[in-house]
Amino acid sequence: MVNYPHNLVRKPLPKVKQEKKHINFANRGMSFEAAINRTNEYYLSHQIAVIHKKPTPVQIVKVDYPKRSRAKIVEAYFRQASTTDYSGVYKGHYIDFEAKETHQKTAMPMKNFHAHQVEHMDQVLKQNGICFALLYFSSLKETYFLPARALIDFYQIDKGTKSMPLHYIRKNGIEIKENAYPQVPYLDIIDYHFLNGSKNL
Amino acid sequence: MVNYPHNLVRKPLPKVKQEKKHINFANRGMSFEAAINRTNEYYLSHQIAVIHKKPTPVQIVKVDYPKRSRAKIVEAYFRQASTTDYSGVYKGHYIDFEAKETHQKTAMPMKNFHAHQVEHMDQVLKQNGICFALLYFSSLKETYFLPARALIDFYQIDKGTKSMPLHYIRKNGIEIKENAYPQVPYLDIIDYHFLNGSKNL
Repeated sequence: MVNYPHNLVRKPLPKVKQEKKHINFANRGMSFEAAINRTNEYYLSHQIAVIHKKPTPVQIVKVDYPKRSRAKIVEAYFRQASTTDYSGVYKGHYIDFEAKETHQKTAMPMKNFHAHQVEHMDQVLKQNGICFALLYFSSLKETYFLPARALIDFYQIDKGTKSMPLHYIRKNGIEIKENAYPQVPYLDIIDYHFLNGSKNL
Repeated sequence: MVNYPHNLVRKPLPKVKQEKKHINFANRGMSFEAAINRTNEYYLSHQIAVIHKKPTPVQIVKVDYPKRSRAKIVEAYFRQASTTDYSGVYKGHYIDFEAKETHQKTAMPMKNFHAHQVEHMDQVLKQNGICFALLYFSSLKETYFLPARALIDFYQIDKGTKSMPLHYIRKNGIEIKENAYPQVPYLDIIDYHFLNGSKNL
């Protein structure tokens, strides 16, 4: 599993930044991400599916090669992801998804979905991959499985500047009830709605 | 596409390192990697398949947040990959592979395949993913498509310390003839050997 050390990254945040809303959002995002990572570890260890989070894309500018020790990256920058964060294989099917969290109670901000990611989702659907978003409303403690088609259609309206209302997500998605193990059992949705003949998503 | 700036990374290499064999090998590896990246770009732009190289896994230790400019990573280290480098979707099927190059004429060094990667290949096969390695012998200018099963079986013998003889690769793999576009047409092999009913790999 890819264990990206987010806590290490966030430690040096200056106070002025921590007061900003998007940092709070990101911090809350961690726990949902952790739940999904644990879900994927469960699926992997029980030989149910092989789904990994991709490494964070980093543009490396300068590397030092100190004598007698390993290469040290001394200048690098975060890059915008060109694909979704999670992908893998389940019963031969290609699985591809993005996970987002919000503390808002009535809508999911779309600014967290980049044009490249939405385009990638469209490309995956054209190749008959199973593609979706997992959306967590932390204040409501509700998680939704939203098929990529519904997300792409909504994104087309105004290229992602509008928030996606919860009622749109409820109408076009399926709620995932949290479990003990695995915590976010999204493969159940795939079994029921994609693989049992009712390809209606 | 993920465009990892290898040239930028390699520039600061001290001379003592550049004389070492594995640096030469890595430099040569670039051109094969570039050929595969271009192949994937071709497949993507022609809506044939969606296959991406994963970002290089990096462990981030320290990030600076300068005022009025973007976050700068000032301490990070390369991490060993826990999966293969390439994955994606082709006609609904999950595709997963690793690409390696050698200047040797009679064998492929196995030290470039890590235990985690071989284990990952095994997990993918259990989920009915299509998994393989693309092996390039630069001195011979020959490229082989080696099904993961054959690679895993060979790796089991001595846990990857032994080189894989070319005659083993020729016996268990399929040669890929280089093209103008795409350069390394590996999906032709998948069409012929995996998807046309002869699932004998």
